[in-house]
Amino acid sequence: MAAVPGMYGNIKLIAGTSCPDLAQEISDYLTETCEIHIPLADRSILKFPNDNTYVRLNESVRGQDVYIIQTITRPVNDIFMELLITLDAVRRDSAGRITAVIPHMAYDRSDRKDQPRTPITARLVADLLQVAGADRYITIDLHAAQIQGFFSIPGDALTAYTYILKDYIAGLQIPDLMVVTVDLGFAKGGRDWARELDVPLAFVEKMRKDATSQTLSLIGDVRGRSVLLVDDEVDTAGSMVNAVELLDREGAKDILIAFTHPVFSPPALERLAELQDRVSQIVFTNTIPVPQGDLLPNMKVISVASMLGEVIYRAHVGKSVGKIFNE
Amino acid sequence: MAAVPGMYGNIKLIAGTSCPDLAQEISDYLTETCEIHIPLADRSILKFPNDNTYVRLNESVRGQDVYIIQTITRPVNDIFMELLITLDAVRRDSAGRITAVIPHMAYDRSDRKDQPRTPITARLVADLLQVAGADRYITIDLHAAQIQGFFSIPGDALTAYTYILKDYIAGLQIPDLMVVTVDLGFAKGGRDWARELDVPLAFVEKMRKDATSQTLSLIGDVRGRSVLLVDDEVDTAGSMVNAVELLDREGAKDILIAFTHPVFSPPALERLAELQDRVSQIVFTNTIPVPQGDLLPNMKVISVASMLGEVIYRAHVGKSVGKIFNE
Amino acid sequence: MAAVPGMYGNIKLIAGTSCPDLAQEISDYLTETCEIHIPLADRSILKFPNDNTYVRLNESVRGQDVYIIQTITRPVNDIFMELLITLDAVRRDSAGRITAVIPHMAYDRSDRKDQPRTPITARLVADLLQVAGADRYITIDLHAAQIQGFFSIPGDALTAYTYILKDYIAGLQIPDLMVVTVDLGFAKGGRDWARELDVPLAFVEKMRKDATSQTLSLIGDVRGRSVLLVDDEVDTAGSMVNAVELLDREGAKDILIAFTHPVFSPPALERLAELQDRVSQIVFTNTIPVPQGDLLPNMKVISVASMLGEVIYRAHVGKSVGKIFNE
Amino acid sequence: MAAVPGMYGNIKLIAGTSCPDLAQEISDYLTETCEIHIPLADRSILKFPNDNTYVRLNESVRGQDVYIIQTITRPVNDIFMELLITLDAVRRDSAGRITAVIPHMAYDRSDRKDQPRTPITARLVADLLQVAGADRYITIDLHAAQIQGFFSIPGDALTAYTYILKDYIAGLQIPDLMVVTVDLGFAKGGRDWARELDVPLAFVEKMRKDATSQTLSLIGDVRGRSVLLVDDEVDTAGSMVNAVELLDREGAKDILIAFTHPVFSPPALERLAELQDRVSQIVFTNTIPVPQGDLLPNMKVISVASMLGEVIYRAHVGKSVGKIFNE
Amino acid sequence: MAAVPGMYGNIKLIAGTSCPDLAQEISDYLTETCEIHIPLADRSILKFPNDNTYVRLNESVRGQDVYIIQTITRPVNDIFMELLITLDAVRRDSAGRITAVIPHMAYDRSDRKDQPRTPITARLVADLLQVAGADRYITIDLHAAQIQGFFSIPGDALTAYTYILKDYIAGLQIPDLMVVTVDLGFAKGGRDWARELDVPLAFVEKMRKDATSQTLSLIGDVRGRSVLLVDDEVDTAGSMVNAVELLDREGAKDILIAFTHPVFSPPALERLAELQDRVSQIVFTNTIPVPQGDLLPNMKVISVASMLGEVIYRAHVGKSVGKIFNE
Amino acid sequence: MAAVPGMYGNIKLIAGTSCPDLAQEISDYLTETCEIHIPLADRSILKFPNDNTYVRLNESVRGQDVYIIQTITRPVNDIFMELLITLDAVRRDSAGRITAVIPHMAYDRSDRKDQPRTPITARLVADLLQVAGADRYITIDLHAAQIQGFFSIPGDALTAYTYILKDYIAGLQIPDLMVVTVDLGFAKGGRDWARELDVPLAFVEKMRKDATSQTLSLIGDVRGRSVLLVDDEVDTAGSMVNAVELLDREGAKDILIAFTHPVFSPPALERLAELQDRVSQIVFTNTIPVPQGDLLPNMKVISVASMLGEVIYRAHVGKSVGKIFNE
Repeated sequence: MAAVPGMYGNIKLIAGTSCPDLAQEISDYLTETCEIHIPLADRSILKFPNDNTYVRLNESVRGQDVYIIQTITRPVNDIFMELLITLDAVRRDSAGRITAVIPHMAYDRSDRKDQPRTPITARLVADLLQVAGADRYITIDLHAAQIQGFFSIPGDALTAYTYILKDYIAGLQIPDLMVVTVDLGFAKGGRDWARELDVPLAFVEKMRKDATSQTLSLIGDVRGRSVLLVDDEVDTAGSMVNAVELLDREGAKDILIAFTHPVFSPPALERLAELQDRVSQIVFTNTIPVPQGDLLPNMKVISVASMLGEVIYRAHVGKSVGKIFNE
Repeated sequence: MAAVPGMYGNIKLIAGTSCPDLAQEISDYLTETCEIHIPLADRSILKFPNDNTYVRLNESVRGQDVYIIQTITRPVNDIFMELLITLDAVRRDSAGRITAVIPHMAYDRSDRKDQPRTPITARLVADLLQVAGADRYITIDLHAAQIQGFFSIPGDALTAYTYILKDYIAGLQIPDLMVVTVDLGFAKGGRDWARELDVPLAFVEKMRKDATSQTLSLIGDVRGRSVLLVDDEVDTAGSMVNAVELLDREGAKDILIAFTHPVFSPPALERLAELQDRVSQIVFTNTIPVPQGDLLPNMKVISVASMLGEVIYRAHVGKSVGKIFNE
Repeated sequence: MAAVPGMYGNIKLIAGTSCPDLAQEISDYLTETCEIHIPLADRSILKFPNDNTYVRLNESVRGQDVYIIQTITRPVNDIFMELLITLDAVRRDSAGRITAVIPHMAYDRSDRKDQPRTPITARLVADLLQVAGADRYITIDLHAAQIQGFFSIPGDALTAYTYILKDYIAGLQIPDLMVVTVDLGFAKGGRDWARELDVPLAFVEKMRKDATSQTLSLIGDVRGRSVLLVDDEVDTAGSMVNAVELLDREGAKDILIAFTHPVFSPPALERLAELQDRVSQIVFTNTIPVPQGDLLPNMKVISVASMLGEVIYRAHVGKSVGKIFNE
Repeated sequence: MAAVPGMYGNIKLIAGTSCPDLAQEISDYLTETCEIHIPLADRSILKFPNDNTYVRLNESVRGQDVYIIQTITRPVNDIFMELLITLDAVRRDSAGRITAVIPHMAYDRSDRKDQPRTPITARLVADLLQVAGADRYITIDLHAAQIQGFFSIPGDALTAYTYILKDYIAGLQIPDLMVVTVDLGFAKGGRDWARELDVPLAFVEKMRKDATSQTLSLIGDVRGRSVLLVDDEVDTAGSMVNAVELLDREGAKDILIAFTHPVFSPPALERLAELQDRVSQIVFTNTIPVPQGDLLPNMKVISVASMLGEVIYRAHVGKSVGKIFNE
Repeated sequence: MAAVPGMYGNIKLIAGTSCPDLAQEISDYLTETCEIHIPLADRSILKFPNDNTYVRLNESVRGQDVYIIQTITRPVNDIFMELLITLDAVRRDSAGRITAVIPHMAYDRSDRKDQPRTPITARLVADLLQVAGADRYITIDLHAAQIQGFFSIPGDALTAYTYILKDYIAGLQIPDLMVVTVDLGFAKGGRDWARELDVPLAFVEKMRKDATSQTLSLIGDVRGRSVLLVDDEVDTAGSMVNAVELLDREGAKDILIAFTHPVFSPPALERLAELQDRVSQIVFTNTIPVPQGDLLPNMKVISVASMLGEVIYRAHVGKSVGKIFNE
Repeated sequence: MAAVPGMYGNIKLIAGTSCPDLAQEISDYLTETCEIHIPLADRSILKFPNDNTYVRLNESVRGQDVYIIQTITRPVNDIFMELLITLDAVRRDSAGRITAVIPHMAYDRSDRKDQPRTPITARLVADLLQVAGADRYITIDLHAAQIQGFFSIPGDALTAYTYILKDYIAGLQIPDLMVVTVDLGFAKGGRDWARELDVPLAFVEKMRKDATSQTLSLIGDVRGRSVLLVDDEVDTAGSMVNAVELLDREGAKDILIAFTHPVFSPPALERLAELQDRVSQIVFTNTIPVPQGDLLPNMKVISVASMLGEVIYRAHVGKSVGKIFNE
């Protein structure tokens, strides 16, 4: 249970306010599995009456290998600024190395200019994290893999699909399974799922007719099949509901849903509740915390804590991270 | 009324969502006084269901001299991130030069490490503005003048005390006037007020005994005097209320209050309402918008629009800004 | 025909060695359509006996608005280093503003780490261009739109699909047309094509069984349809040949091929020649020069010169570029 | 007495030419108290006939944790450039980490633009130190705490007031003591002194009437009190002399003077000598060396060597520095 | 005589304290030859009692094209820091473009590590100039041409040899002339002189036997020749004296000396005075001011003012500088 | 044979494709002499059909002290881009420290602007290496020592003259030896050779009459002497051939040639072959690989592997490198 010396001083875990349970699980993993006893560091985070975020570390991080765990969820700008301010505090306390652990990355859907005169906020986010003091980052299932290239600092862009979610789905041993993506934006993600599970693939295609209406069509054939409907995240669940209705009409036998990030913007939970009859399971991770009371009976949450804990451990001691994933 | 050619393309004003009225007043000043017809640029700013801020410019800023007007008020982190994202959009649209006009600067009270392991958020803010694309900044009455040095980009750090507020107070021609500062943090600001008005000076001193209680004492003598109680901003108004009570006990004849930034965090307005009997006037600027319905009868709001408009005009055409202030 | 004054000095065009004809066409466009007489600047580019690239400008670019036109094609590293060295020469001659015009961007397929321990060369390329002196870039049809975010300098990432190629295809007025993408990587590009032409969509799916073999399947139905097979570029044409064969087997009536970048790595031309009977037209642009003698009878080359010329003109005089495309 | 392994290689102390005695004292502290035998590194510093400063390290610093000790005193620009050049030499010899130990920071009175068109030299100094190679800095009693924010590198901005000088003054157990600041610029510093000693506070106020004359007035009451007159530094001692005279007239019983930095620009020593009768003690530190022969009988010098030595030790081994100060 | 509009606002000349006469000559050149009336800007430069350099601009440089003229001579570090501080003041006043005009560059003899653990101060100087705010530089006869590469900002590294000094020497029409360099460090400079004048070349070789003694030998034959002894600068004149003695012994008929920078560190003037009999002319420029009273009868000073003035003019209006030199 | 712990994780050697044999020799040196068993890391480097270079590391470098060995030889741009791409891959895999070991630096002859409007490619190269991820560099015999100053990262610029080549030549004990440089560009290098061997010195001077013809003359006297003709590299060997012919005519008894870098651009080998009768030995290093079959009978190759291996070892464990060279 003694501290394992790393190359960058001792390890230190700091939890932001956005995912305290996940942070505690990571701490537990390091203690129990890696045998490094690392309780979450003591820190104060609060808002002053003037709505200014304030952060104070109550223990020194001088010369240490610091991991700040903060997933980006609502209130998004508050949570993100809190992370930047924490980075500044850690940097100014002369930390040895600083890694921002961001299970759900900020603004990763704003990853390109698809209209003139728009920002690329995901690149801005990468720059802000660096200027605030991050030396490295760890994240899970970016909306586009290219976002890795927005960072000039090194990082570990992990995936929950093939390492965590796929294992669970494969374990269900569903006959006549087929993968369908909610839209074409996840076409390559769907192909990866289909390849891993060795099953066929189809797509729901969303055609916007004009600014207000759209029609859906299915590319491929799902008749008589159990369908695994996949995406990287569920936001308001509007597309998901439409896709389920379409699959229903097209003769799908059974429907499961799998994705990484439960963003669940209103009225996502209401919409998903209405799908209870048609969807046998909704599987996702805890990159974003969902209150226990909000979980529906057909929901299954799979924790990313051991994955993140193992990557933090390997990053700290200098062992290959790639070895536990893609190879 | 034709556009005046500047060195950096034509002028363009973009208003964020935090102070639309002030932005419109600045536009009016430029049109009416400087004879440059510059309506506020058409832009869309909204929040997606997932709480992500989105900005789109609806007219091109290519090669132009852009001024983004956004004061920092609550919700602070939303307003500040909106500014950063707007900067990114403007920068990526190949603007000629970008000036962030921030009447009330973000986080300017977090300007030093007064305890170990805290951030210097005001410096972080300066860095974030630069990395997001600001080439220059314009602001009013920073909490500490040193914050100018947090920026490596040039800027115009203006003051409302001696240019706007002082003129108003001097115009009242109050006999036996005296300046008192709310605490020692504003001692030098108080001295500047006293020098400009050529009246004596005293201080309220706040002594924190322990974490929860404090006592106030007055350094100087106010008996029989009309007192101008000054500070840079009023936040919750707690110190202000205590200072008024102390001045009352110490025999002040009449009390006026003057400051630049009406932060007015709850319960500031309730507290100030209770001072109605004792305070003849509360004078401040519109660097932060206060809803018309919240204004008390003894409040006087003086607009900074003409000051900002004039500085923007001079910055655009390359005329001295210093000449209108300190010289 | 007099020079039009821009905000950044006079305009100057410098052609690298990779696409002299296209550069000349752009110069002609500016002269004839925009009425700015801008011959290509006189410069010397050569290789020393020791294989070192050497660049010398034979006319001054001091204070001017310089556009360096260099598409990236084979020999890729020579062409790219030549561009970087030209940027350095232009920068050190005190140019006013420098835009790298790169019709086909370098290394844009290396845009993410899809395996551990690989580079993200497209981001590296963006950084190298900036450090060498580029203030802006102009490019066409990036492999992934996210690559825009690899640049922190502003740029114009244009598209030939909807502005040039689509107009041509639409003009053919082909009945019962359908869009098919060569693989799922271009699924969203295919959707854009289908939306613009208002026709149905299908996909060829490439499943790699193991390292050496793969099977193709079609998602969607092409029977009795004329098919427009689309992608962003054709490299060795292996996927294209396989897709055509599959479409043939699946009953497509007629096949056209459209893409932006004719990379044409060997044996692309041989393979495309063998498709002569089955493919009625192969339509692409001149972002990469193809020798006149290599063109097949069913090939149609559409020039991007007027598009690039117009964008350069608008960038120079500060007019909206977005207006000619997405709006 | 064996070397203690730190995280950044072995520790190395390099003394500039400005404070060799203090540097030796720090070395002695590390040897005697921390049991790390660290003699000052062998280096050559000289001026060439052409007045160019030259630095050469006579022992390797490769991979080591280097502390360059150089206080900034007259000749200021020579001493500061010597520090920058030493940083460059250390950096280019591949040091592991470089800390600039600057007991009296350069140009820290030029910390804001109080008139138009002036520099903020203290920010420039911070940037120059960073570009020359400093990874961290250690300093004592900055003129304004905000100067910490001029650095983007982390640092330890220490205080001699509450840790060293206060202990000494408190030890004198002077009855009826009161703190008075020399001017309002040190108002908050004075409050900190008063709080620590738990005694009352008053201020000398300097009113400039015009460019050449000024009057002094006292805010507060010192009659019958022993006065501790405080400031951060004494430069020409003009303000100090005037303050003593005023306190005398106002009936102060006894006067002591305490400050951190003995800048002592001429004719400070002459002026202080004339105060011999009225001032019982003048207490300051050795952040700036004062020749033994210049010391007056009522002067007391308290060394900062153990404070700096302890901070260097803790920075080297990664222990909390905050713990020895503010907590 | 009206101001000529440039691309970067109006031109502004600021003289530091090191070469006021040269600065005035440049101003005169611009007024008389280029017909731009540009008096030297009003500025205050002084030293505070604490030896801190202070700079204040007394007129606005907002949006203007500023040239700061400051040669680096003794006291070197004071003069150089004054330049950096002036750059900061100009930058923070929102100048449009800033060029540091440094006729004699700082520390240009420290241009490489010729021993371990030494600085490369000339590179440091380039970095410091950039971080302080210089956008461009202009200088004359760098000790090594490679120092241009120490700057990442563009600049004009001019030469006085072939443009100014050579014309003068050629005008003397000396028969049997020969060029000899003072040491091998100037071998290539000597070759350029010899080529321009189309005369033979020889070298004095300085062999250091040990730390204290050295012997000189001549490579080449000077018997019966008039010798032009050349170098880039004369520092203490020790080498020059030795070279003259050697040439004398070797049978040179007459000796002239030519160089650009009269550094003249003591006892240079005494030594040169002793060469009066043997040296017919000592020709140099005014890149460093030499007091009129120090000039010897055989000295000839050639001004660089018209060269610098012409380059400033061309840089301002965007005309080729190269055209007046090397082509 | 166990791994020696360094300060930056374990050591890792990665060989590019340009000098595999030298890389293996370095690995052998570390294994055999330093007793650190470090085989070359497993990596894949290839070119895709579209001529894009691809690099993949097949083992993790996380937290390790990585040395990438890549000399720059033809095809120069391919080899250099391969190095940059490898740096990016290593950096993104979170290496602890990265050193680029470049025995023959890229573009080091383009080290200054000797004509207007040319690049300084050697500085560009330094910047590109840094932006791609190099923390340090190691190189041998730069064309100009000033190129060290093009890097802001620290590095070890080694010399083969005095450490390797000189020892060999001295061991030959040639009577009446004399050093002659091929041209004046190597004058100071020649002087160093002459000093080390304690023999006289002469120069071949190359006078370009016009663009196509040149004449050679000898400065100094070689009659009856054995001549060591020296330079830093041999490119096309044209100058070398001319120098040998001139020395022959001038009566040199015997001729040896020594240089560091065998660039050997065609027709260097043919030219050198023709000198077989007149030149007794041609001595150079293996900084650039020469195929065994190309070596002439009078050629002697001296390996730099032990020098590089020793420097890598010392850099890794933090021991002085200077001690093995200049002291």
